[in-house]
Amino acid sequence: MYNAFYFLLDAAVPAMQLAANTVADAASAVSTTSATDTAATAAVATAEEVQMISLTANNVWMMVATALVFIMHLGFAGVEAGFTQSKNTVNILFKNVLTFAIGLLSYAFIGFKLMYPTVADPNGFLNWSGIGIGMGADYVSGAYADGHYTYWTDFLFQGMFAATAATIVSGAVAERIKISGYLIFTLIFVGVIYPMVGMWHWGGGFLASMETPFIDFAGSTLVHSVGGWGALAGVLILGPRIGKYVDGKVVDKPGSSVPLATIGVFLLWLGWFGFNGGSVLSADPEGTSLVLVTTCLAGAAGAIGGYVAGYFVFKRLDLGMVLNGILAGLVGITAGADIMSPVEAIIIGMISGVLVVLAAKTLDKLKIDDCVGAIPVHLVCGIFGTLACGIFGAKAGVDQFLTQLIGVAAYGAVSFSVAFLIFKLLDVTMGLRVSEQHELEGLDSHEHGMRGYTITFDD
Amino acid sequence: MYNAFYFLLDAAVPAMQLAANTVADAASAVSTTSATDTAATAAVATAEEVQMISLTANNVWMMVATALVFIMHLGFAGVEAGFTQSKNTVNILFKNVLTFAIGLLSYAFIGFKLMYPTVADPNGFLNWSGIGIGMGADYVSGAYADGHYTYWTDFLFQGMFAATAATIVSGAVAERIKISGYLIFTLIFVGVIYPMVGMWHWGGGFLASMETPFIDFAGSTLVHSVGGWGALAGVLILGPRIGKYVDGKVVDKPGSSVPLATIGVFLLWLGWFGFNGGSVLSADPEGTSLVLVTTCLAGAAGAIGGYVAGYFVFKRLDLGMVLNGILAGLVGITAGADIMSPVEAIIIGMISGVLVVLAAKTLDKLKIDDCVGAIPVHLVCGIFGTLACGIFGAKAGVDQFLTQLIGVAAYGAVSFSVAFLIFKLLDVTMGLRVSEQHELEGLDSHEHGMRGYTITFDD
Amino acid sequence: MYNAFYFLLDAAVPAMQLAANTVADAASAVSTTSATDTAATAAVATAEEVQMISLTANNVWMMVATALVFIMHLGFAGVEAGFTQSKNTVNILFKNVLTFAIGLLSYAFIGFKLMYPTVADPNGFLNWSGIGIGMGADYVSGAYADGHYTYWTDFLFQGMFAATAATIVSGAVAERIKISGYLIFTLIFVGVIYPMVGMWHWGGGFLASMETPFIDFAGSTLVHSVGGWGALAGVLILGPRIGKYVDGKVVDKPGSSVPLATIGVFLLWLGWFGFNGGSVLSADPEGTSLVLVTTCLAGAAGAIGGYVAGYFVFKRLDLGMVLNGILAGLVGITAGADIMSPVEAIIIGMISGVLVVLAAKTLDKLKIDDCVGAIPVHLVCGIFGTLACGIFGAKAGVDQFLTQLIGVAAYGAVSFSVAFLIFKLLDVTMGLRVSEQHELEGLDSHEHGMRGYTITFDD
Repeated sequence: MYNAFYFLLDAAVPAMQLAANTVADAASAVSTTSATDTAATAAVATAEEVQMISLTANNVWMMVATALVFIMHLGFAGVEAGFTQSKNTVNILFKNVLTFAIGLLSYAFIGFKLMYPTVADPNGFLNWSGIGIGMGADYVSGAYADGHYTYWTDFLFQGMFAATAATIVSGAVAERIKISGYLIFTLIFVGVIYPMVGMWHWGGGFLASMETPFIDFAGSTLVHSVGGWGALAGVLILGPRIGKYVDGKVVDKPGSSVPLATIGVFLLWLGWFGFNGGSVLSADPEGTSLVLVTTCLAGAAGAIGGYVAGYFVFKRLDLGMVLNGILAGLVGITAGADIMSPVEAIIIGMISGVLVVLAAKTLDKLKIDDCVGAIPVHLVCGIFGTLACGIFGAKAGVDQFLTQLIGVAAYGAVSFSVAFLIFKLLDVTMGLRVSEQHELEGLDSHEHGMRGYTITFDD
Repeated sequence: MYNAFYFLLDAAVPAMQLAANTVADAASAVSTTSATDTAATAAVATAEEVQMISLTANNVWMMVATALVFIMHLGFAGVEAGFTQSKNTVNILFKNVLTFAIGLLSYAFIGFKLMYPTVADPNGFLNWSGIGIGMGADYVSGAYADGHYTYWTDFLFQGMFAATAATIVSGAVAERIKISGYLIFTLIFVGVIYPMVGMWHWGGGFLASMETPFIDFAGSTLVHSVGGWGALAGVLILGPRIGKYVDGKVVDKPGSSVPLATIGVFLLWLGWFGFNGGSVLSADPEGTSLVLVTTCLAGAAGAIGGYVAGYFVFKRLDLGMVLNGILAGLVGITAGADIMSPVEAIIIGMISGVLVVLAAKTLDKLKIDDCVGAIPVHLVCGIFGTLACGIFGAKAGVDQFLTQLIGVAAYGAVSFSVAFLIFKLLDVTMGLRVSEQHELEGLDSHEHGMRGYTITFDD
Repeated sequence: MYNAFYFLLDAAVPAMQLAANTVADAASAVSTTSATDTAATAAVATAEEVQMISLTANNVWMMVATALVFIMHLGFAGVEAGFTQSKNTVNILFKNVLTFAIGLLSYAFIGFKLMYPTVADPNGFLNWSGIGIGMGADYVSGAYADGHYTYWTDFLFQGMFAATAATIVSGAVAERIKISGYLIFTLIFVGVIYPMVGMWHWGGGFLASMETPFIDFAGSTLVHSVGGWGALAGVLILGPRIGKYVDGKVVDKPGSSVPLATIGVFLLWLGWFGFNGGSVLSADPEGTSLVLVTTCLAGAAGAIGGYVAGYFVFKRLDLGMVLNGILAGLVGITAGADIMSPVEAIIIGMISGVLVVLAAKTLDKLKIDDCVGAIPVHLVCGIFGTLACGIFGAKAGVDQFLTQLIGVAAYGAVSFSVAFLIFKLLDVTMGLRVSEQHELEGLDSHEHGMRGYTITFDD
């Protein structure tokens, strides 16, 4: 209703320009119909006032996006607990809950200022600008981040992202890793490694300042492949679960609850509205809404890709492949969600859905045991999505493709090496894998004294 | 982008200072209250600037609403998987996930431009304005949809709606329909049928241009009854599940997980904040917040209606009837959520909750086997809610009631006939129902090679 | 804060009209740099226009917060059904669903106007300003609640809060209380008791007008401890479940589904974004985003507190304690979420996480049987969080601490006594506890004729 006002206004503008010298005259003429409004007009909309409303609207979107990314941690918990055996359900959930808690706290104390040194003092060690997120009183103003959100929103949105990198690892190494070793890894990975390498691009590091700058809109590489490399390092050191590969055959380890995994995937998809939609770093209507469209279309196309490829490769209507196909499509579009057309998004999503099936098959051939398909989804499609920005979209081209390759390689080399080193050190010093007895009997009864499901009736 | 305006403004300040004397004079008159603000005022708030902020705020709400409607697809998956037998859980989830994926893609390629021909070229076949949602570069402006959201938000919000129509069918026909036939039906129903009939009202068709225009705010008829008619056509052709009606008795087929169904209902309720709240098509404070109130009160009243009626009809505290009563109340209020008072919303919700119980009882008497109560909820209460707009609320009256009847009848005749025809064709050509053996043993082990729940412990 | 500007402005208008001519001159002088903009300026941004956009943006946030608090009811359902035995799952879900439905309706008819008498006529009995929420046509304007949200949003946000107080009781008294007695308690507790005492502080009652006003930002005391006191009254009258305390030992009653409880906790955490974030009662960027940060950090720290304390007290990696630790942290920060620094939030959260473990241990020693830990979480940490506002944060001090003590004591005395009285009356008149047979066999098969989980396969 009140927006209709603008259009009335457009009609009024030419007339007003005739009266440019004496706006006051025009105003007084109008004032017969709405005297107070017109008189008030000239005085109301100060720069500060309008800027604060703009900040408010943009910040609301960023807070919504933050809440949506938060719920991805429940999504990961659902996928991982659903796709792993019921004897390890409590263990998985314990890991996932603490991953987020430890991740957010370590990012608050160390990570945030390491990843975004410019928000404070950029001259510390490794660009680290000091411990803790502080009170940030200086940062609360319309000037922060071009008036699109506050310092606090910035921290929390980025903190939600950070913890996902470790969660990706969690699923792959499940059912056989010791809690202690895993949590120490998480602390280091989220507090130091993820932000350190994240800074290369999002913190204004070398990848941002190349001649053809690296493209990774919301983190196909910075978040997903970094997590995926960590996952790969973990499963290589741990080795496959007992009884997974027997006499050259792959033995199915049925997950406890497919509905739980499905809930997880839908919540991850929902979370991606914030993961990608919030990565616009404002509520810019054109930017955010296009990103939501490309994101959703890629997820839907990923489902189709996983469905079809799963049918041909595994000869069944494989729900696991459809669900991982969705995640694959979402990871794939993440790097270029803001520069792809709908059709390009669908192509990228569908290829990702196919890739996830092929990668799952390949990992099994190599006897690399990833309990939930984290490596196919996050590493393989994270890399593909990043390279796709050199093939599709507004910036496609040889130079861009080369830059994308450099970025992928740089993140791979450092993330994998460092993750491998940490896991190896943990393995050597305190042992990374539970005993054979614990693994066979399930981690829940041993470490947690609790079962994931207790369904009994007395009658 | 538009925030950059502030900074341009800074450059303009020196020029403004040339005018310092006059502004200062004006300001000094006011300056007893707020000097600086007033000086800035004169230059800041352009029509474009304020319009963009308004678009931003409104578009944020529409994106939130879109995300909320998205999560309804998880809600449907939960309700359907929870209320059907555990031997068919994977099959149900497979159907629900692919329904959304196929639905969104077919709506992008065909449906959207068929339903809203005016957004592009309204002169194609059946008003269809061409294939694909395109890049829509022309539509990204404050002028689109009265400056309340972008072209992309429009598409995605509507796309989320479209896929629900097919999902409603999914629950009713569960546990006995072939995947292949169901998916082809979905493709046609969401891509063509739903948008074609939706255009009659929301696309500016004949129901919108009647002397007393048809009322269906958010789709009691356009979405829910259309889905419900499809569901009725499906179950009539399929016939009841084996062993459902034996010797004149109705045999319970207990669902796999009541908590899962409850999660589903709560998520659907949450989604209705967006389904109805977003149907205001702006963030108009009065409109949206009243709609949320009527929606929530109707859902709550539906729970009470289902509780009480379920107690009298089935002689037990029937959680299934309470949950379906909630959905019934929500479907019932959907047509008039914007024109009902709180008390009217409660009355409509409560009647809907009672109706869903009576309808469920009646269907069983007629041996029409609807696994999850989709027909009582979406068809019966969709019709009731639409007619209720002629009985309650600001527009009640004989003329309005007649128009509502015409609308209900028109949608019923076409939706049911076409859905029946498609299902019949599929049944004749490729067979719609699985074999008796598959049905008895469960669809999961046959088509999907996977079980929904695997809860075992080794100790 | 900045919206207050409009009201200052109204005072300035007469003064400005004196300067009308000169302002016009100033505008034309500026128009050399941005002619159209400036010309448009003078006419566009009326006070009303900009105020409506501000209202729109703020109201969007409040509606999002409302939706988030709504989803807490699913969170509670998940926690309670997950942590109680599978033979009572349907009963718990039935209670939770109806708690919300009855709670919202009774709050609409009675509670809202009892709690916030000032929104209408403050002179009724007990300050009650009349039955029903009415049409509220008068309240829909930018003037309502300083232009930050509408009357409808106000009601719905507060209504979502109200129902939580009863839900807290639900979990503690589970597995042995009769549905009938519980629902009557809910009706009175949400419709009358909660709003009556809530008015003391949020409705402008005596705690708001003390010399050192009571601090309870979002309800550590008003919501959580009030619910907790009700829970304590209920379990004292009901007594422990059969077989819970045998020969001086505490017997575990394993919950049906730990994943379900975990889903519940994550959704409660998500809901707290709205519970605390919405309690700012506007979308003020600084206020809301700081509150989200303190809330999330306290939740994360609560997880660590519960983890560590659980390890020392129960000698295991106790996921139940981690999950309740999160809730404890969230309850603990609720009273002071807007005045704590991140570090203080972490301290409060961590102490809360430890307290919840100690309280759980203590309750078991006293043979007080709280099925889900509602008393440790909501009562103990609700009190602690309220007192913490006298120890930490901007307002810490002896006077503040004493006020906090007075508030805690006042709420405790009245809430506990009245809840005790209601439960006692129900116990004496109609019986509050189910028969021994029903309790042992499970409430689902008796009252509901339905099982929570039915997982069988035919092959």
